Amino acid sequence: MTSGLIVGAAGMVGVKLTRRLIQDGAVADKTIDQLTLVDVVPPASLDNPPFKIETRAADLSAPGVADTVVAGRPDLIFHLAAIVSGEAEADFDKGYRVNLDGTRSLFDAIRKVGGGYRPRVVFTSSIAVFGAPFPEAIGDTFFTTPLTSYGTQKAIDELLLSDYTRRGFMDGVGIRLPTICVRPGKPNKAASGFFSGIIREPLAGQEAILPVPETVRHWHASPRSAVGFLIHAARLDSLALGARRNLTMPGVSVTVGEQIAALRKIAGDAVASRIRRAPDATIMKIVEGWPRNFAPERALGLGFRAERDFEEIIRIHIEDELGGSIAR
Amino acid sequence: MTSGLIVGAAGMVGVKLTRRLIQDGAVADKTIDQLTLVDVVPPASLDNPPFKIETRAADLSAPGVADTVVAGRPDLIFHLAAIVSGEAEADFDKGYRVNLDGTRSLFDAIRKVGGGYRPRVVFTSSIAVFGAPFPEAIGDTFFTTPLTSYGTQKAIDELLLSDYTRRGFMDGVGIRLPTICVRPGKPNKAASGFFSGIIREPLAGQEAILPVPETVRHWHASPRSAVGFLIHAARLDSLALGARRNLTMPGVSVTVGEQIAALRKIAGDAVASRIRRAPDATIMKIVEGWPRNFAPERALGLGFRAERDFEEIIRIHIEDELGGSIAR
Repeated sequence: MTSGLIVGAAGMVGVKLTRRLIQDGAVADKTIDQLTLVDVVPPASLDNPPFKIETRAADLSAPGVADTVVAGRPDLIFHLAAIVSGEAEADFDKGYRVNLDGTRSLFDAIRKVGGGYRPRVVFTSSIAVFGAPFPEAIGDTFFTTPLTSYGTQKAIDELLLSDYTRRGFMDGVGIRLPTICVRPGKPNKAASGFFSGIIREPLAGQEAILPVPETVRHWHASPRSAVGFLIHAARLDSLALGARRNLTMPGVSVTVGEQIAALRKIAGDAVASRIRRAPDATIMKIVEGWPRNFAPERALGLGFRAERDFEEIIRIHIEDELGGSIAR
Repeated sequence: MTSGLIVGAAGMVGVKLTRRLIQDGAVADKTIDQLTLVDVVPPASLDNPPFKIETRAADLSAPGVADTVVAGRPDLIFHLAAIVSGEAEADFDKGYRVNLDGTRSLFDAIRKVGGGYRPRVVFTSSIAVFGAPFPEAIGDTFFTTPLTSYGTQKAIDELLLSDYTRRGFMDGVGIRLPTICVRPGKPNKAASGFFSGIIREPLAGQEAILPVPETVRHWHASPRSAVGFLIHAARLDSLALGARRNLTMPGVSVTVGEQIAALRKIAGDAVASRIRRAPDATIMKIVEGWPRNFAPERALGLGFRAERDFEEIIRIHIEDELGGSIAR
């Protein structure tokens, strides 16, 4: 039997992770008997879960809150909570308070439980810990020189995770997620939004805006892979992980042109023609600083798997979000 | 005219930096008119300095203290204050409070001054940001995976320095000092103490203990070089630095055997015979995790210079600390 905690459970990945845990009823070869869902907004309640679920609205960066969140000594903690890149850049204090102090509060709360408590903590980091210029493919020993406050906060959290693990306070694994594509839901104003938008909107019968040239290359994995990474990280052997606890996750490196070609192949010319080119210099400037390709050998060696190609990413979106049908 | 602030002015490097600034009377091509010396213990007062010197005892990690330290808007800030590796490992809370929170408080205090204030901040980081296993020589893009809490705190400070610089709050440069050798003063219990001890004690007519095999390789620079790095970092052009603000300093990579051979060449067999081998498995285990060699191309390209070889390091110790004479 095992008990779990998801911090940031109301977000897109948190909701999908919760559904997967309910579906599996187990994680890391152990039956789940209790799951606690925490977020700043109350996570949705769930009908007929196969184990006890407790939901709580809580802000980890507020004094004392983290202590109460881990007081039940969950065996497994997924820490997904963060404010996104754009907001961390717009509001310096809030970004550091939530993304750095909130994470440190959680790790410190775990440390202070004591009595041999040493949970597996799976933390979602980001490829934003890297900043241009890059080699052709970023290897596992490349340095973290983020070009955003969000990336800085994630890189700091990674260092804390490693040190708290080394000191024996917890058993952490940091996983650097690729850009999640195809992200479900409505278009948003994130600079990266178009990577999903140019697939999601045309498949739903709507126009999508492409603000960058088709030569732009980026690193993607599906929401289903993101959940798979989290589940796999939960069951990794501590000895196999060693001292280096932060891993770049596998993904698919494709150009925007290759994304569109995959869409055309799967859904046809009419769907692909719903993409409208509208170059935006501001977005292009932001995107230029982003990673394009990785060689995530350690994660592959540890058994993490993403999609084989971008067509598979599109097919997963059609299966998981569109019930298998396309608006042709 | 320029004004300076040294935080951590009472330490070995701080004292030598103060002397150098008094001797030069200028830094970065500007005449110094005011220097503030801050440390947790009151920095020594100085006779007849060529400019106004204010000394203060202050702990940056205490609330509000950092704000008062930067209230005078110094143009140039040297931030050398830290507790050492052994203490940060022994006292987890104190290490994070001083080495992380203290530095963040200083950077935040600078940020909050506002009104266009944007001082050059020279921060002493450490090669402890790196953790084994290493390549033959650690290049400028190698990742930081520290194996001590001290190294973790320094790596986090580096990330903060880069982000606060990128956001325009300050103009930071982080310099990763090699192990300083020959460190003057009495033997201490630091695991790295023997690197200096096997030179310093024999030259002073005393026995030194060597706890590791002569094959151990490490990365050294003299105290004079450390001060030189700080002065050079103070005058570096911001544009030449770009976004990557943390630099591994040059040094001399030698084995312990090469250190001893250099000592023998300079001071003779009688002096070199004052080294007693007393293998210590605990110290050896610690030292195995330390960097051995670097390829610090960026720092060299920016004009930083260390000694050419270990003999030069010994000669500098004899000149600067022993008045040119050896106890033969």
